[in-house]
Amino acid sequence: MKQITIGIDIGGTNSVIGVVDKQGIVISHDSVLTANYKTAELFVEECVKVISNLLKTIPEKSELIGIGIGAPNGNYYKGTIEFAPNLKWKGIIEFVNLFKSHFDVPTFLTNDANAAALGELIYGGAKGMKDFIVITLGTGLGSGFVVNGNLVYGHDGFAGELGHTIVFPDTGRQCGCGRKGCLETYCSATGIVRTVIELLEESDEDSELRAYKKEKITSKLIAEAAQRGDVLANSAFDYTAKILGMKLADTVAITSPEAIFLFGGLAQSGDLILKPTKNYMEKYMLPIFKNKVKLLHSSLEGASAAILGASALVWSEVKI
Amino acid sequence: MKQITIGIDIGGTNSVIGVVDKQGIVISHDSVLTANYKTAELFVEECVKVISNLLKTIPEKSELIGIGIGAPNGNYYKGTIEFAPNLKWKGIIEFVNLFKSHFDVPTFLTNDANAAALGELIYGGAKGMKDFIVITLGTGLGSGFVVNGNLVYGHDGFAGELGHTIVFPDTGRQCGCGRKGCLETYCSATGIVRTVIELLEESDEDSELRAYKKEKITSKLIAEAAQRGDVLANSAFDYTAKILGMKLADTVAITSPEAIFLFGGLAQSGDLILKPTKNYMEKYMLPIFKNKVKLLHSSLEGASAAILGASALVWSEVKI
Repeated sequence: MKQITIGIDIGGTNSVIGVVDKQGIVISHDSVLTANYKTAELFVEECVKVISNLLKTIPEKSELIGIGIGAPNGNYYKGTIEFAPNLKWKGIIEFVNLFKSHFDVPTFLTNDANAAALGELIYGGAKGMKDFIVITLGTGLGSGFVVNGNLVYGHDGFAGELGHTIVFPDTGRQCGCGRKGCLETYCSATGIVRTVIELLEESDEDSELRAYKKEKITSKLIAEAAQRGDVLANSAFDYTAKILGMKLADTVAITSPEAIFLFGGLAQSGDLILKPTKNYMEKYMLPIFKNKVKLLHSSLEGASAAILGASALVWSEVKI
Repeated sequence: MKQITIGIDIGGTNSVIGVVDKQGIVISHDSVLTANYKTAELFVEECVKVISNLLKTIPEKSELIGIGIGAPNGNYYKGTIEFAPNLKWKGIIEFVNLFKSHFDVPTFLTNDANAAALGELIYGGAKGMKDFIVITLGTGLGSGFVVNGNLVYGHDGFAGELGHTIVFPDTGRQCGCGRKGCLETYCSATGIVRTVIELLEESDEDSELRAYKKEKITSKLIAEAAQRGDVLANSAFDYTAKILGMKLADTVAITSPEAIFLFGGLAQSGDLILKPTKNYMEKYMLPIFKNKVKLLHSSLEGASAAILGASALVWSEVKI
């Protein structure tokens, strides 16, 4: 009998749902507009309808072995989403319980960066690795740490918040968490936009990005300008890479991974971010770790990456 | 039959060796002057003699189940001591193999901070905890991370170098590792001495520490002065605690421990270091971790702490 899983990635605007087999093939998928549902209960009811339809499309004699959910501020131990700033639903939501009342299969939940790390472990470039880190460079900076072959959840299920380690204490950029100077305010898709806006304001450097209103500048536009040789855009990549490289060197000193994978929006600028980050990481690396740690592009980029990550949570939990 | 272990802590000047039972009782112990032995082979021969004598003192019908060694730059996977700056023996030393030719029992080696963490887990305040960190504040700053109940060795066996994460990149204090601004140049017994010397040079503040030649100032003298209300000495503790507290908050965001234990020379200044560090740690903590993580004194202080840590490595490895 063919075994399948459901992977659900909850985003602030849109959520994606897919049926995934052990080889990482997304057999069928659909989406639900998260922002349209006032309560988590209504959202889950819609997800249940979508899943029921998706399950009609799968081959006969398939067995659904579990549901995996990746969500912002997802807590693995409790199956909850807690105080997620990008979701309408406030407070602590018993998300796994909402699903369990509809499906009689094991259901697991973790945050999106942890799901990305499990996706890399089960289907991607980290297959066979025991110690690695996935860094997601999206709106924020997320991270999933795998140590001794297991995801690090920590005592309370919220481990892996590398994006909220502090680069410039007291004086740095305001972060959404309420503090100042967090890594994600510099090294993320929104962080590099803030850097470009600062550079545009503080320098006279000519740049094609001056043609845009500030609120229209995106990390994609910055990457395209940098590719065309725009000096200011390249300076922004260099600054981002320097801070990220330094923090990755610090992180290597703590968990000594075999590899670090870059994933998500800003990572899609490819070697523009990866190469200088690698150079700075090596520059700031403790000598015993120099030239030992691979810095790699995630092998799960693309539309189905988030679904794969969420579904990987099931394969990593259910012994089959 | 009573089961016993041998714990060996290798120090730059002096090494201590003890026979330890499962309850953490040091049945007998002795020491060897490390610095007197030109080669690791000669040192190990002396250790073997000492161990043989110690084993004569133990109760009859005892069974030696293993030897645990804590050593600077010790590599758990390879059983080696690699390029330890404080030891005379240069390069990579196959330390476990040297012992194995003398004793037919499992022999394990790790660095001293990892040994301290295992000591805390097996005999100390971390009994029953699955996620915690031990910070050793001695000549340098060492750290041992326990995640999911297991020590984090990382891909190459050198994980846990929190002392070499960077506080002030490029501009900070020169570190023995060759880089600048490492945490241990600020937060360690020698780090606080450097802070006091800077404060003495840069300020006109009256201080009883002005009575000493610079090279005679120790963290113990600073602690005593601070206890007596010396303002400059207290400023040095505050500065040390601020940097340590910030870095511990960063570290919590990564591995989300239940507790952090402070161990070693500077930690013996007790609440002088612990209380302000706790305050700064909470100040800089990501909101979801605030007031969740215990900052505690190690329960293994004292002469036998290093022996206990090394012996704990055996109990954590050998299933009995």
